[in-house]
Amino acid sequence: MNFTAQLQALCPQSRLCVGLDPEPAKLPGAWAGDASKFYDFCAAIVDATKDLVCAFKPQIAYFAAHGTEAQLERLVAHIHDVAPGVPVILDAKRGDIGSTAEQYAREAFVRYRADAVTLSPFMGLDSVEPYLAYEGKGAILLCRTSNKGGDDWQMQRLADVPGQPRLFEHLAHLAESQWNRNGQLGLVVGATYPAEIARVRELAPTLPLLVPGVGAQGGDAAAVVQAAGRVAPLAVNSSRAILYASRGADFAERARAVAEATRASLL
Amino acid sequence: MNFTAQLQALCPQSRLCVGLDPEPAKLPGAWAGDASKFYDFCAAIVDATKDLVCAFKPQIAYFAAHGTEAQLERLVAHIHDVAPGVPVILDAKRGDIGSTAEQYAREAFVRYRADAVTLSPFMGLDSVEPYLAYEGKGAILLCRTSNKGGDDWQMQRLADVPGQPRLFEHLAHLAESQWNRNGQLGLVVGATYPAEIARVRELAPTLPLLVPGVGAQGGDAAAVVQAAGRVAPLAVNSSRAILYASRGADFAERARAVAEATRASLL
Repeated sequence: MNFTAQLQALCPQSRLCVGLDPEPAKLPGAWAGDASKFYDFCAAIVDATKDLVCAFKPQIAYFAAHGTEAQLERLVAHIHDVAPGVPVILDAKRGDIGSTAEQYAREAFVRYRADAVTLSPFMGLDSVEPYLAYEGKGAILLCRTSNKGGDDWQMQRLADVPGQPRLFEHLAHLAESQWNRNGQLGLVVGATYPAEIARVRELAPTLPLLVPGVGAQGGDAAAVVQAAGRVAPLAVNSSRAILYASRGADFAERARAVAEATRASLL
Repeated sequence: MNFTAQLQALCPQSRLCVGLDPEPAKLPGAWAGDASKFYDFCAAIVDATKDLVCAFKPQIAYFAAHGTEAQLERLVAHIHDVAPGVPVILDAKRGDIGSTAEQYAREAFVRYRADAVTLSPFMGLDSVEPYLAYEGKGAILLCRTSNKGGDDWQMQRLADVPGQPRLFEHLAHLAESQWNRNGQLGLVVGATYPAEIARVRELAPTLPLLVPGVGAQGGDAAAVVQAAGRVAPLAVNSSRAILYASRGADFAERARAVAEATRASLL
């Protein structure tokens, strides 16, 4: 299956990506504190929201911190089973070169069977290419993040590039015009500054955008959609506001209600 | 134990860091093709070289690609057991923020018991801070990598910073002068261009440098040491040239011979 086409097909109905970031202390009821329940918890969230989303995005750090990789493998398999056609974005922000990057690509696409993976582009284009060797799989590059440190490099204007664009602008331009040879690239842009989303969309009119930061992180859903437009694929991520909508036995039901409201706000 | 102090104490005797990047197809003899032998192979390399090194650097991708995290846990424990005082650098190039970065820090320092971890600084200072919360642990930032794509961002001159330094120069300056509040930071600088190592050392005279690219990747050991100087800690990594010095029953003995020659070339 082709990641970009999958996302494009689902976007008219939903631009909501549900992030799967399990934390032991936040699990509901009797599962609280028990990392061995990550699969049960996340699978219940998937079952409750699978018809409302354009993608699921497990964040690998939450699993790796507790040695629960086997549960992540089972979770992705479960998503493919109960929600065929819904792409799984492995949020890993990998960034390395050569044979090491090949190992990371194998981890994401062979071991975990993800449809796309997030990458950090600090080491440049050749750190991205090993992922593009997997036909149809998506490689979603960090472009403009809305944390404070996002300004440190991404907002720097580049002295030697014509027009002196900011680094994130030049990255969006290169990704759209030169690096995206087989339609596999996407970009991560934070939800906090809609004007920057609009700028990325202007420079990269066809690339899928993954936008974290709506929900618990406070981004404005309607402003994000207006800035990103409704033509190219857009996946707006919400994790905590959905996962932890309730700590009680109704957690999945409440997660669905929040997901439905978020989905509607992104149409 | 304090990572920087550990490295500083060992550097007069050795500036060699042995990279532990096991690949099934390259394992010796009857172990060839068998990822379940990663621990046995790497532990044998450790045993054969532990008195010749200033650090060991397992690359997590090689373990993650094959679902062999448990072997990596055992391997780090083995290093701490047989080579007390020799720091373990987990090469992971993580880069994320907030609670996700906290999970990655937990993975590196609690789960794997590494003494230091490599990080990608694309998301800025606040993506580094969660690692610095672990007292004495090292956080080694990608600064200047010598792959082709290393030029894409790291070599860009920054229009709005006084003197218009290149990105890697400004990063080295900030890491030394502002970010390194508790002596935990280090920098990754590729071995290919000694002039750039010298420039990083000029801007960051006290930071430990981790230099990959000697051995199979072709960097000149003597030139690296001359450029980095012999005052602040320096760890020059070699992986494949040592790990795969022989495919026969003498692999550990041959690894030791190559490690000894490389150590001598770095004094």
